[in-house]
Amino acid sequence: MSESKVVPQTFRAIDVIRKKRDGMELSAGEIEGLVNAYTNGDVPDYQVSAWLMAVVLRGMTRAETAALTDAMLHSGEVLDLCSLPARKVDKHSTGGVGDKTSLVLAPLAAVAGVAVPMISGRGLGHTGGTLDKLEAIPGFNVNLPVMEFRRVLETCGCAMIGQTAEIAPADRKLYALRDVTGTVESPFLICASIMSKKLAEGIDALVLDVKTGSGAFMKNEKDAAFLAELMVETGERMGKQVVALITDMDQPLGNMIGNALEVVEVLDVLRGAGPDDLRELCLELGAWMLHVGGAAKTLSEGRKRSVELIASGAALERFRQMVELQGGDVGVIDDPRKFSQARHTMQVMSAENGFVTSMQCEQIGTACVILGGGRERKEDSVDPAVGIILHKKVGDRVRPGEPLATIHFNSETRGERARQMISESYHIAEARPQARRPLVHRVIGKPGGPN
Amino acid sequence: MSESKVVPQTFRAIDVIRKKRDGMELSAGEIEGLVNAYTNGDVPDYQVSAWLMAVVLRGMTRAETAALTDAMLHSGEVLDLCSLPARKVDKHSTGGVGDKTSLVLAPLAAVAGVAVPMISGRGLGHTGGTLDKLEAIPGFNVNLPVMEFRRVLETCGCAMIGQTAEIAPADRKLYALRDVTGTVESPFLICASIMSKKLAEGIDALVLDVKTGSGAFMKNEKDAAFLAELMVETGERMGKQVVALITDMDQPLGNMIGNALEVVEVLDVLRGAGPDDLRELCLELGAWMLHVGGAAKTLSEGRKRSVELIASGAALERFRQMVELQGGDVGVIDDPRKFSQARHTMQVMSAENGFVTSMQCEQIGTACVILGGGRERKEDSVDPAVGIILHKKVGDRVRPGEPLATIHFNSETRGERARQMISESYHIAEARPQARRPLVHRVIGKPGGPN
Repeated sequence: MSESKVVPQTFRAIDVIRKKRDGMELSAGEIEGLVNAYTNGDVPDYQVSAWLMAVVLRGMTRAETAALTDAMLHSGEVLDLCSLPARKVDKHSTGGVGDKTSLVLAPLAAVAGVAVPMISGRGLGHTGGTLDKLEAIPGFNVNLPVMEFRRVLETCGCAMIGQTAEIAPADRKLYALRDVTGTVESPFLICASIMSKKLAEGIDALVLDVKTGSGAFMKNEKDAAFLAELMVETGERMGKQVVALITDMDQPLGNMIGNALEVVEVLDVLRGAGPDDLRELCLELGAWMLHVGGAAKTLSEGRKRSVELIASGAALERFRQMVELQGGDVGVIDDPRKFSQARHTMQVMSAENGFVTSMQCEQIGTACVILGGGRERKEDSVDPAVGIILHKKVGDRVRPGEPLATIHFNSETRGERARQMISESYHIAEARPQARRPLVHRVIGKPGGPN
Repeated sequence: MSESKVVPQTFRAIDVIRKKRDGMELSAGEIEGLVNAYTNGDVPDYQVSAWLMAVVLRGMTRAETAALTDAMLHSGEVLDLCSLPARKVDKHSTGGVGDKTSLVLAPLAAVAGVAVPMISGRGLGHTGGTLDKLEAIPGFNVNLPVMEFRRVLETCGCAMIGQTAEIAPADRKLYALRDVTGTVESPFLICASIMSKKLAEGIDALVLDVKTGSGAFMKNEKDAAFLAELMVETGERMGKQVVALITDMDQPLGNMIGNALEVVEVLDVLRGAGPDDLRELCLELGAWMLHVGGAAKTLSEGRKRSVELIASGAALERFRQMVELQGGDVGVIDDPRKFSQARHTMQVMSAENGFVTSMQCEQIGTACVILGGGRERKEDSVDPAVGIILHKKVGDRVRPGEPLATIHFNSETRGERARQMISESYHIAEARPQARRPLVHRVIGKPGGPN
């Protein structure tokens, strides 16, 4: 007579769920078992969503977070870029409003001799996405196959694409599930999602820009620092050099928000102009990329090199080369009027007299989404032409009737809604605000060049 | 141009999940919305499992628990038994080993003039189930349609069936999901599951037997009392009179475990015999059922009536009538040898000298499951003939070579495994144990007759 086993030897999802529910630490094998079984379709969504909620509420140890990252990373292809002699460095931002630094940094680091294999995302919620910005350049192809991605990278030292089906498929499946089950907001899951994708790029080092403030996902610095430390430690456990800058997102970065407008501002910075805050953050992150990429012995050397590579026009030329290699129309670089233009513009006027004391940054990002510059639903397409140009930022003097911002729009109703939201997001008071928030709040991770 | 709504007015599962995740109290409308949408198939399993895990880890307020019970109760048919003049009272046990009191209590309360519309369950884990015991009576039909159930109830004052498709369909769907997502173990979810099914029976009052000890789901009295209070308050919020007895399950109730064997022991009790503990708990629960059912002004009167109705043979005759009305072979009542018999028996011998100080009660229940008396997997069928007869219980003197128990089995390997488990579950020491645990630990809920 056949007897069923009393103690099953095989992987059982229910045991892993219960263990996490009861606050116990999962082994790397248990986490790997769950991730692999889910990726292969052997464990249903409803078990994984219960486990995800248990992770959100019980948390994870550093070892568990590294094991989850590792399992997600190895759920798909890991690029092998050993054939490139240069050190491979990427930069990742946790998302903000007006944050277009990646488009400056990839060519800047490449021209300094650092290879930048950058796989980016689209806009999420109120934040913009690098891919959406790149696609504002007519013809620019962010969907290169891996072979082509490698060719562009070998030719010009940098390449910028979207996530492929081969890279971290577990993350793709888990992210879609988290999005609909209220399990996005966990630093452990956010860390594993970001780090698994970035480490699948075959990089040696990573510079993280963790945003904090009213326009960031992490509104307060404590949460941002926790996530930053988690990502740095996870990367280090996996043998990579990782540094994280906690940077300010209490107001938009730069003056332009919206896909084509942001590329225009990127070109300004690459020409040595552009707004101070954007230029400053590009130089700061550039210094770190050059430093961890072995192109600068010290941070100050990295910064000096970055300034020079912009001043000489070398970084702009490298950007032009990348655009050309990825099928983009380089004509927009010399004549920004060739970008898709919105049909209408209107100004947001100040009714008040005084100083801008703060801005509700998320609301400005949402206004841009409402204009059509981002997606309200996943299936929406984005309008590259719409956006917002800010004329006043925190600390600026404002007089009644002076324009705070200019809106570029294609729909009257959307334009009017955006105007209201932008108007409400400005806080104006009589007294000049005291100190501005620093641009870089903290640096987390061991400084130093390549190991 | 059509504009999508910024604030959706419709029910969104994700909002309810997030709110519970963040520890906030859900409104009755939100809970009802989720339960109804899930029952109708408008919300997928993976969202509900995330919500269930959030409930397990965040808990629920009393108001939320009542709202969940109410929504589950009204997800299907609620029996209307107003046409029966008698007060309708049911009794429910949270599950134990050797617990066969329902089979005594339903006819006992019925003959006293209380209507007992009892909808019971099958064995779960190591515990036995009333339906499995009833089906040990050849021909007994636990799957009566509601009309037939009502007819039996009207004719003999009691009827015992399994859950129908019409009763609390939300519970059926939620329970199946909880079973595979590690979300069974929550007093709030257990309360809502039990109370929604019981209140759908159209009862006026309910006597709960909440088990505690090594053979119960709630191993410690604190957890049992918490669940009991939750169920009593939930019932009262819904206008029902509910009393809960916390009773001992640190050793099996009575001496017989296994479906047919337990019916034999029920018949012993109905004949005024049977083991003391089983008889005593039947009288105690019977007193409460008669009291809340309006058939006895006081508990002591209820107990006196119960003793009389057993002594007179009236309770046994009512049991016979119910068996006949539900299609069962009443021949087994007069001649227990007509029950299905196991092919083999063997004795579990004591190797030690002393006193039984404790028993690992869950393990004895599991031994009966292994014999085939319960289900290891949902799709298993149960063998009515197998089981265990205990000769020694806590406090009893034991000498080496004396039998502790007799096993009735149909498979040698299963019999041998059961023998080992039963042997290991007896703890024997030289010193006589001091005080026995009381049978009824506490009573929770307002005593008193019908309101």
